Amino acid sequence: MDLQLTIDERHGLTAQLYRQLRAAIVEGRLAAGQRLPSTRDLASQLAVSRKTTLEVYEQLEAEGFVVGRGARGSFVGQDLASSAGRSPVSIDIVPASLWRSVPDALAMPRPGAGLRADFRGGVVDRRIIDFAAWRRAVAHAMRKQAHMPGNYRDPGGEQELRLAISRYVGMQRAVACQWNDVLVTAGAQQALDLIARVMVEPGDTVAVEDPGYPPARAAMRALGAHVVPVPVDAQGMIVDAIPAQARVIYVTPSHQFPLGMPMSLERRVALVEAAARRGAVVIEDDYDGEFRFDGRPVESLKSLDHAGVVIYVGSFSKTMFPDLRMGYAIPPPSLMPVLLKARQLGDWHGCTLTQLALGHFMLEGDFGRHLRRAQRIYARRRETLLGWIQGPLAAWMEAAPSSAGIHITALLRGIGEADTVARAATHGIGLHGITPFYEGSPGPAGLLFGYAAVDVDDINASMSALVSELGS
Amino acid sequence: MDLQLTIDERHGLTAQLYRQLRAAIVEGRLAAGQRLPSTRDLASQLAVSRKTTLEVYEQLEAEGFVVGRGARGSFVGQDLASSAGRSPVSIDIVPASLWRSVPDALAMPRPGAGLRADFRGGVVDRRIIDFAAWRRAVAHAMRKQAHMPGNYRDPGGEQELRLAISRYVGMQRAVACQWNDVLVTAGAQQALDLIARVMVEPGDTVAVEDPGYPPARAAMRALGAHVVPVPVDAQGMIVDAIPAQARVIYVTPSHQFPLGMPMSLERRVALVEAAARRGAVVIEDDYDGEFRFDGRPVESLKSLDHAGVVIYVGSFSKTMFPDLRMGYAIPPPSLMPVLLKARQLGDWHGCTLTQLALGHFMLEGDFGRHLRRAQRIYARRRETLLGWIQGPLAAWMEAAPSSAGIHITALLRGIGEADTVARAATHGIGLHGITPFYEGSPGPAGLLFGYAAVDVDDINASMSALVSELGS
Repeated sequence: MDLQLTIDERHGLTAQLYRQLRAAIVEGRLAAGQRLPSTRDLASQLAVSRKTTLEVYEQLEAEGFVVGRGARGSFVGQDLASSAGRSPVSIDIVPASLWRSVPDALAMPRPGAGLRADFRGGVVDRRIIDFAAWRRAVAHAMRKQAHMPGNYRDPGGEQELRLAISRYVGMQRAVACQWNDVLVTAGAQQALDLIARVMVEPGDTVAVEDPGYPPARAAMRALGAHVVPVPVDAQGMIVDAIPAQARVIYVTPSHQFPLGMPMSLERRVALVEAAARRGAVVIEDDYDGEFRFDGRPVESLKSLDHAGVVIYVGSFSKTMFPDLRMGYAIPPPSLMPVLLKARQLGDWHGCTLTQLALGHFMLEGDFGRHLRRAQRIYARRRETLLGWIQGPLAAWMEAAPSSAGIHITALLRGIGEADTVARAATHGIGLHGITPFYEGSPGPAGLLFGYAAVDVDDINASMSALVSELGS
Repeated sequence: MDLQLTIDERHGLTAQLYRQLRAAIVEGRLAAGQRLPSTRDLASQLAVSRKTTLEVYEQLEAEGFVVGRGARGSFVGQDLASSAGRSPVSIDIVPASLWRSVPDALAMPRPGAGLRADFRGGVVDRRIIDFAAWRRAVAHAMRKQAHMPGNYRDPGGEQELRLAISRYVGMQRAVACQWNDVLVTAGAQQALDLIARVMVEPGDTVAVEDPGYPPARAAMRALGAHVVPVPVDAQGMIVDAIPAQARVIYVTPSHQFPLGMPMSLERRVALVEAAARRGAVVIEDDYDGEFRFDGRPVESLKSLDHAGVVIYVGSFSKTMFPDLRMGYAIPPPSLMPVLLKARQLGDWHGCTLTQLALGHFMLEGDFGRHLRRAQRIYARRRETLLGWIQGPLAAWMEAAPSSAGIHITALLRGIGEADTVARAATHGIGLHGITPFYEGSPGPAGLLFGYAAVDVDDINASMSALVSELGS
C-alpha cells in the first residue's frame, strides 16, 4: 500500500489526514476497492486520537471516497482516481479558431518609465478633476445602492445617468434623444463590441477608416467580421470606396483617428445615404469630440441622420478618465431591444456604483464645470504645442488641420518616424508614430501628440529639446 | 423658397437661425445651388442685427452648407440634402440572424410589488452588509484612483482584488492559485460569456445541465453554440450522456441549479476525465457554494482537476449583492492569455472603483466577517423554512437534499406548480416554479425557495398562510 502519511504539526490533524488520504485516492495511489487500515490501527500508527481518524473516515465516506462495510472495514471507493492523477499530463485546451488568429497587438500601454513627458494619445490629466465633488457623487451613489431592491438592474443603465447623458448629447452634440434611447456601456469599447455582436455574422463585411483605431478593428475581427480598411482623404472616409456589402461602417467624424481632421459635411451626408441604401449601420465614434477649439462645433453625424442608421457612441474616457469604464451608445430605436439583450447576456449591466455617481455628478452640474475647466487647460496646452509645431519644428513637420480632440497629428517631412521617436526617447520624450494605424496601403510618416496630460512647462521643455535634437 | 424662419425668443438668435437654415438645407427644403437672401435682407426681414445673420452664414459656410460667391451672394452647397431628408422613411436595420432568434426570455425580474414575502432565487439581504466598512473601502479606492497613472488598467483586474480572491478560493474552495491566475469579471455572467467567446465557434456543442440556469444557456446560444441539455439525476449531471463532441460542459457541482444537490464525487472524477478525453473545458459555476450548512464542504471540482480542464467561476452576487457586478474565473493557465484578449476587446477591464474597494474590503477582513454573519443569518432562515417544508408542508412537498447555497428546492406531490404559485400569490407570497428550468424532457413540478432576503418572521407568516391555503 503506497500510503505515506506524515503529520507535520500538532494542530489541524484532521484536515491534514483528510487531505493526504483523499489525495492518495484521487491520484490512484490507493486503488479502488482496497481496504484501509482500521481507524484504531491508523490512530495508533500516527499517534493521533481515534476521534481524529474516525472523523476523517466519516468525512471521506460522506463524500464517497471511502465505502464503509461495517465490521469488514473501510474500502476505497470505485472509479475515483482521476485520469490526470494516474498520468498527470495537463490537457491542451484549444481555443476557437477565430481566437487563435486574433493578434496579440493590444499590449497594455504602460506610462513610459523615466520619461519627462509622454505624448501618448488617449491619456488625460486626472489632476484637474474636482475629486471633492466626485467623492460627494460617490457617497450619494453608495447611499442609493445600500437601499436598492431586487437583484439585477436595467441592462440599459441607471435611469439618472441615462437622463444626464441624453441631456448632455442633446446640448453638446445636437443628438435629440430621450433617456431610454441611451444604452450605458463599459466605455466605447463595449459599445463597439455589442454592436458587432448583434450586427455581424462571421464573414460579414465591416468597413473601417484607414488609418483607424486598432481596438475597433480588433473587436470586429474577434467576432468574425471581414474588416475592410477604407482610405481617408482630407474630407474623411472616402464614401465611394466603402464595399457594397458592408453591414457596419465605423467612422470618427468629429476628429478622425489618428489624423485629426473632421469629416466634411458633404461626406457626412453621402455616408448616411450610402448606409441607408445598404441597410448598414454607421458607428459614429465621437471619442474626444467634446473638446473643441476653433469656432462653432461641427455637429454630430447622428444629428444629420434622418434615416435611422447612425449609432452615436460616446465615452467618458477622455472627459473623465479611461479607467472609469463608462461610455454609451445611442442607436436607432429599432436596434435597442437586441442591444439590451446582448448587454444582458454579456454581463447583465454596468457597475451600479459608478453609474449612479456619474449620473449625480452630471445632474449636479459638476461634470459641466469640469469640462469647461478641462477645455481651458487643454486649450493652453494645445496652443503651446501648436506654437512649437508651426514654429521651431515647422522645418520637420506640419500639423494636420483639426479643431477638436486631445491630440494633434503632425506629418513629417525629411525625417523618419521611427528614427524621430528613438531620438526623442534619448531625451526622455515619449513620441508615438502614426504608421501603425494604417492597414491598407502604408501611409505617410507622422506623429500623434496627445497633449492632455502634459503641462505647458513640460511641453515647452520637451519641444525645445526636440528642436535641438532634430537640428543637431 | 420653402423657408419659414421664426424667431421665438430674443436670446440665442444666432443658434436659432443657424439650426433652422441648416435643417432646411439638410431636409432638402432649400435646394442645392439655390441663392440665399443676402445677410442684410434677412436681418431686416427677421428684425435681427446684421451681425447675427453674418455669423450664421459664416458658420454655415465654414461647415460647407453654404458656398459664398463674393458679390454674387451665398448659395446652398451641393449634395447636402440627406436621402432621408427627402424621403423621411426610417431604414429597418436587421440584426445578425443569430440575434433574431435569441429568445426574449430574460425579462428583468422585478421585486414583486405588494408581496409580503418573495422567495425569488438569487436575491440577497443587503441590509446585513456592514456599509460603514464598505464605505471605508470605497473611500480607499477613490484615493487610489485619483492618483493612478496611465490610461487603461490590466484586463485581468486590479492586483489587490486578484490577490484577495486567490487567497479566498484557496482557503474556502481548495483552489490552489496565484493572484495572476484570477481573471476578474463583471459577475459570473461575463465569465461565461468570455469563455464561450474563446471556446465556441458557431455550431460547436456545449453541454449544459438539464434542468439548468437559463442565462448560461442563452449566453452560449448567443455566440452560436449548439446547446445540448444533459439530464441530471440524484448525483448530478449524467456524465455518460454528455455528447462526444462537446467543447464546453457547464455544471453547478456545489449546488445544482435549480435542484440543489451536490454532484457526487464519483461523477466529479468521471466528468474531469470525460472532459480531458475530449479536450473540452468544464465550467464549474460555483454561484452560491460558499454558503454551506451541513458538516464539511464538498470541495470544488477544480480542486480535483489534475488535467487542467476546469474553469472555476465565482461570483460576488450572492456573497455581496448582484448589482455589484463582480465575479471571477480561474481558468487553466493555458487559457488565460486568450481570455484576457477577449476581455480587453470586449470592454478593456472592469470597474476600477469597485474592484479596488472590494479588494480592500477582502484584504481588511471585512468580507470574511460579513460572510460569517451572513452564514449565521441565512442558516436560521434556512432552518426555519426547512422546518415548514419538512413539517406542516410535508404532505404537499419534499425538499431536495442540499447542503449549500441560498435556496431550497422542493418537489411537489399532489399539487400543481402553476396552481400553487397562483394560490400563494393571493396571500402576497411570491413562489417560483422549477419547470421553466427544464429544456429537454419536462421535469417534475417543484418550487425554488430563495430564502436569503426573507427574514424569519416573514418566512413563518407566509408558510403558515401557505399551509392554510393548501389545506383549505
